[in-house]
Order: sequence, then C-alpha cells, then structure tokens
Amino acid sequence: MATKTQMDSAREGIVTRELSAVAKDEGIPEKDLLALVASGQAVIPANIRHKSLKPHGVGRGLRTKINVNLGISGDCADYGVELEKADLAAKFDAEAIMDLSNYGKTHEFRAKLVERSPAMIGTVPVYDAVGYLEKDLKDITAQDFLDVVRCHAEEGVDFMTIHAGVNRRAADVFLEGKRQMNIVSRGGSLLFAWMKMTGNENPFYEHYDELLDILHEYDVTISLGDALRPGSIRDSTDGAQIAELIELGNLTRRAWKKGVQVMVEGPGHMSMDEIAANMKLEKRLCSGAPFYVLGPLVTDIAPGYDHITSAIGGAIAAANGADFLCYVTPAEHLRLPDLSDVKEGIVAAKIAAHAADLAKGVKGARDRDFRMGEARRAFDWDGMFRLAIDGEKAKAYYKSVPAHDPRRCSMCGKMCAVRTMNRILNGEDVSLEPDGKE
Amino acid sequence: MATKTQMDSAREGIVTRELSAVAKDEGIPEKDLLALVASGQAVIPANIRHKSLKPHGVGRGLRTKINVNLGISGDCADYGVELEKADLAAKFDAEAIMDLSNYGKTHEFRAKLVERSPAMIGTVPVYDAVGYLEKDLKDITAQDFLDVVRCHAEEGVDFMTIHAGVNRRAADVFLEGKRQMNIVSRGGSLLFAWMKMTGNENPFYEHYDELLDILHEYDVTISLGDALRPGSIRDSTDGAQIAELIELGNLTRRAWKKGVQVMVEGPGHMSMDEIAANMKLEKRLCSGAPFYVLGPLVTDIAPGYDHITSAIGGAIAAANGADFLCYVTPAEHLRLPDLSDVKEGIVAAKIAAHAADLAKGVKGARDRDFRMGEARRAFDWDGMFRLAIDGEKAKAYYKSVPAHDPRRCSMCGKMCAVRTMNRILNGEDVSLEPDGKE
Repeated sequence: MATKTQMDSAREGIVTRELSAVAKDEGIPEKDLLALVASGQAVIPANIRHKSLKPHGVGRGLRTKINVNLGISGDCADYGVELEKADLAAKFDAEAIMDLSNYGKTHEFRAKLVERSPAMIGTVPVYDAVGYLEKDLKDITAQDFLDVVRCHAEEGVDFMTIHAGVNRRAADVFLEGKRQMNIVSRGGSLLFAWMKMTGNENPFYEHYDELLDILHEYDVTISLGDALRPGSIRDSTDGAQIAELIELGNLTRRAWKKGVQVMVEGPGHMSMDEIAANMKLEKRLCSGAPFYVLGPLVTDIAPGYDHITSAIGGAIAAANGADFLCYVTPAEHLRLPDLSDVKEGIVAAKIAAHAADLAKGVKGARDRDFRMGEARRAFDWDGMFRLAIDGEKAKAYYKSVPAHDPRRCSMCGKMCAVRTMNRILNGEDVSLEPDGKE
Repeated sequence: MATKTQMDSAREGIVTRELSAVAKDEGIPEKDLLALVASGQAVIPANIRHKSLKPHGVGRGLRTKINVNLGISGDCADYGVELEKADLAAKFDAEAIMDLSNYGKTHEFRAKLVERSPAMIGTVPVYDAVGYLEKDLKDITAQDFLDVVRCHAEEGVDFMTIHAGVNRRAADVFLEGKRQMNIVSRGGSLLFAWMKMTGNENPFYEHYDELLDILHEYDVTISLGDALRPGSIRDSTDGAQIAELIELGNLTRRAWKKGVQVMVEGPGHMSMDEIAANMKLEKRLCSGAPFYVLGPLVTDIAPGYDHITSAIGGAIAAANGADFLCYVTPAEHLRLPDLSDVKEGIVAAKIAAHAADLAKGVKGARDRDFRMGEARRAFDWDGMFRLAIDGEKAKAYYKSVPAHDPRRCSMCGKMCAVRTMNRILNGEDVSLEPDGKE
C-alpha cells in the first residue's frame, strides 16, 4: 500500500496522530490545522520511520520554530561533541536539528541522531554524496544523487534540503548578475560546479518527479534550498535570488500535486528594510508555502556576533511571515561552532522566534511574558528563572553578586524602581538615607 | 556675556567648531547640519566645560549613536572597574557614556570621567540628589534638585536626563491605568514617590524655566526622561506612556524657545509590532526632536540575554526613526554589569545601530559591509578582522581551530562555497576526493 503523507491524509480529512498532537500543542482546532496542511500552508515533517519524533507543525499561524545545525566537517570531526549539541538542542526545546555532516561516517551518526532525537531531523543529501558514494564530485551521476536521497529517507530523515531551483535558467541569471559573493550555499555551489563540469542540468530539477516519488514514500518534507541566497548586503534581493525563488514556486506546486509536503528556504544576508518585502514575495510566488530562513543577517561587519545579526533579521522575518528560523551561531564565517556557540545560537534564535510570535499575535504567546512581569513585580526570583529561556544563566548572574537583599538586584541597589513603587503604592514612605543604608 | 548654545549659534548661521567637526564626520554639508540643529531635529551635546569632548550629532539623517551606561551602586562600588568600562566604551567608539552612579563619591568619579572622556557624558541628577545633598528623599526641596543640576552642569556634563514629564496630569493617567509594572524608571519612580510624599508638583516641571536657564548657561542638552516607559510587554503603548509623551512634546517646544537643545527618551519593553508606530508618534508629538531609546526589549522572557532582545528592538526603532540607542547588557534585570557584560552590550548596540543605518540609508553606511564582502571573497582574513566591529573576537575564533588552510574555515572545510565558486568561476575543476584530502 502506498504511503499516505500528512498532506494526503489532511486532504482526505484524516486526523493523523501527528496532526492531532500538533493541534493540541498549538492550541488550535484540528480542522483548522487540517486545512492548513491540506493546502500546503503548513507542514508536519514526520518521516514514517522516525519513531522517536515529537511532531511539530511549521507554517501560517503556528508558533515560529527553530532549527539547530550540527554535524562534523573534515577539519573538525568529533562525533561526541556533535551529539552533545543535539542534547543542547533538546534542552532548549529546539524543534529541529539539521545534520550537515560532510565527512566520515555520516550514516552511523545520522542513525544515532534519528534514534534518539524527538526533534525533526533534516539533512542536505548533496553534502553527503561525496563521502557516501566514494566518488569525486564530477564523477557522481544524477542517479547517484537520487540514491543518496533514498538512503537518507530510509534512515528516517524528516526533511531534506534539495537545491532543485538552481537550474540552468536560474544559473544563467546568476552569471549575468555579477554578484559580489557569488553562491554561498554549500550545496548550491557544489551543484553549480557539478553542472559546470558535467554540462548537465541540475539533477534534482531534471529528475524532480522521481525525487518526489522517493520523498513521498517516506513522507519526507522537501525543503527547497535557496542556492542563490545573497551572501552579502551587496547581493540581496537581486535578480539571481528572485529568479530562483520563481523556480521554487513552480517546484512547490509540482510537489503539492504529488502530495509531498514543502518548505521553501530563504535568505541570507540582507539589510532590514528589504526583509518584509522578501517575506511577502515568497508567500506570493510560492503560494503560501512555509518559509524557512537562514538569518537574514542584517549586516556583514559583525563576525563573532552573527547570532545577534541573525536574531535581528530572523525576528523581523518571522514577524512578517517566515515560519521557521535556522539558528546562526557566533562562529558563523569563522569556525565550526563549539558547544558554547551552539547554546548562544539556540537562545538567540529562540528569542527571535518568540519576539516574532508576540508581534504576529500567535495564540498564547504573550502568556509567558505576562507571567514574567508578575514575577518581576513580586521579586519572585525563582519564578523568573523558571520562566526565562535560559534560567540557569539568569540565576547564575543574579547569584553572582551576593551582598544584597532579595527585594532588588545589584544593578540599581536601593534605588530599584520596582521596590520604590511597591512601597509608595502600598502607602509606605520611601526612605533613602544618604549613607547608603536603609 | 550669555552663553550661546549650539542651537543659538545655528539659528544665527554661525558654524561652531563642534558643528564643523560633526558635519565632516558625517560627511554632510555644514549648511544642512545648521538647519537641523537650528530647528531641533538634531543636537550636538557639548557642555562648554567639557574640553576633551569629540563632538557628535544626534538626529535626523545622522548615524545612529549609542550610549554606554556605567556608574556605581551601593551594592557594587568599584571605581576602578567603572573607569575600565569607560575605556571599553572608548575602544568600541561608543559616542556617549551615562554615569548613573548613585552612591558614594559621585562628584570625584564624574570629574575624572569628564576629564578623560572624548565621549559625551550624560547623567541623571535625581539619582545623585540623595548622596550629594546628604538628605533623605522626602526632605529634598525643589531648589535642592535644581542645585544638583547646576552642580552637574558646572562639572561639564553634556546631557542630563530630566523626568519633567511625569507631572501631576501624567501621573494621574498612570494611576488610573492599572499597569503591571508601574514605573520602572529609577529616576521616575523616585520623583513619583517624592511627589506622593510631599504633595508637591514635579519639581522639574514646576520650575522648568529656571531649569532651562541653568542648562542654557553651559549648553547642556536636556534629555527628557520617560518616567512612564513600559516595564513589560503588557504595559507598552498605554495611556500613561503616551500621556507623558504629550507632556514631553510640550516641554520640547518650551526648551527650543529658550535655545536649549533637546532629546526625548523612549521605551522600554514593547513587542516588535508596536515599535514603528511609537517612533512615528514621538516624531509627531515632539516636533521631530531626536529620539533616544532604551531598548525596546521585544520580549520579557530572556533575562541574561537582554542585549539581544534590545538589539532587535533598537535596530527596528532606529530603522524607523530613533536616533540614539542606549545599550542594554546581558546583566539587565539581574545585576550590575561587569566588564564582559559591558562589552557584550556595546557590541550588540553597535550592531543594532549599524544595521539600522543600512536600512535607513545613512550616507556611507554600506561601504564597510561592501569591503567586508570583498575581503570574504578573497579570503583576506586580516582585512575581515580589521573591518569587524570586534576584530579581536573574530580573529580568536578563526585561529582557535588550527588544522586548515587559509582559503576556508573549519565550518565547511573543503566544502566551503566561496572556495568552490572561486575555483569553478576561474575555470578550475572542483575536486572533492572522498577520503577527505584534496
């Protein structure tokens, strides 16, 4: 019997176990979510073989989700550390993990990740092609690329980045455009190089129907990669980027026809004033498919702090319609992130996602902020630590300056405004003796 | 002879030394800047006694400036550390430093700060009133408050936060509004308590003309404090906040009549979707006076990371018209910031300011990003470190993973997209042998 994807089921009005769980988690009626999944406005990436998955929805009206990248590179290959990164992702409730390993025993690592991870797992099969196939880039065939996709699908991967949009037509627009940073997508640059060296069309574009059949079989969500995303403020919203986005729109609708769930990937480096327009453009060109963005990084001059440049861009993107944020760490552009970088990246992405949810009025998003305000007014420090995204850090900070009473912190000391107001509104006098005592 | 403030001079068409320096620094014609300063759309805070000042302009069309708060509190009083914070501010080119000391030998510390600091110096005289006067809060008289202002003005302070807008009328609106966090402005809460305990009108409101005369004498820019800024997402853009802003608009125009330069201070805690409207509101209600914002913090649930919540809010604010960002550190709400917190706060604010300058098209803002792109494509690591806001951190990160060649970093290893594209566009084959060697 052929697999029914979440989209197939939703179109038939069937409430799957996963859809039911997501509706409950989001606090929305199942029938609303059915309509979103049936029409492609939301996806529930859930490979039929990923048994440990806690399913999540990505799309219109749902909480903004975040993804944590990890995986080994040839220069930095410690499997243990990469699994610790996965644990950090779980600790901070990241909804997705992408394994970008491109060196060594990727299969073994991926299997372990799928087995233990409640987060949805994503991969970029192109990265893995060289290692898996033991062939040099130009010797890989179109069929080889598809074989890697099948292998990942069989292993339980929930979504895969496929750069099918950088076909000859989009690549021509890119070449005419004279960009500063050319192609900064790893997978996109490899495919472009492969096309150049072999003279062939993009294999995922040329064999798109076959690709969709494989993805459908395991209900893998296709995440249409943006090979031509801008790699600098100079290159954003240019012809190449938008030409590829037009292709991604066409590919989205082709996938939907076959019942395959789709996300579309987006920029990149981009100044703040262009972000809202880019979100609108994706939603229009791709008929409302969920938008998964990497950044956008709102300036190029802050290497070492790109978790912040991308938190700014990601928050604006999500407030304007992006549904899914890929985290960026302080190590971006500089090195493979270590555990501390990963944590900083996760927290920054969580902040961006939540700030956007407040802005776009996602159901229930304000509750936690409201409770934080209540805890602050009451000087309920334990309550504050519980409500904080990273309560451990907040607590450590607060405890690090011991000489004060619990009804203030060392920042303002006895001049704490909350303390002053609690007293005066309670009818008490506010005394601030000049000797610093109270 | 009476002092001519920068505003007085501009109105007479006189190009002061300070105005000339600012025009040069911003790359705009002196006559354009004259018009901005004459009309109050821009200020050049420059106390006639601050001899070491490198003057900066704050206002429409100029680069977004940042302020670094420091100063000792009763719980945490180490003068040496606070001076090191000033050095950090100088190292990262922060344009302003506010000394918020509220305990001990504030005079001595402030004198040292003014003497050594090229940054403009701001203070909040109310904080200092208790310590300086050696009186308890309720025993302070209106004249006492003015005396402290005069003392700070004589010491060379360039701008002072004066919470003159929380008069009886605005305080009534606040009391009717039933806010979650009441008043979270330190100075504002002290004035409110003083008004409550003494039954008097806000002393700075009642004696506003006398106050302006003192400020005029030294060309101190008044920074009209927002005592009623929201202290939680729940309280933003409420009646109290806007009622006070209306007062600040009236006070702005009164100051301009006397030739006193004005900035207006703004929120606070606020979800992203309200920020643009707040910027527009300030520019309209306050006739285009420069807007100096603290945050806005776009969520309440990230104590330990409020440099990020405020970088998001500050970037959006500045892109929508705010002219001056007060930094917020990771220690906000938790403790007095240490040196590491201060550095994190400064860099986050610099990122927000620069990202906004890109977005609002400030002259020359894109140049540095363009050069960073060029350095990245060429793998010119030293160039990247030179162009980075914090080149030291970027360099340390890059150097921390030694095993790689200089034409990539350890993040993507041999799969580096920049490397791949440089090769293939140069007509070279891209080889990625499966054993991980090249």
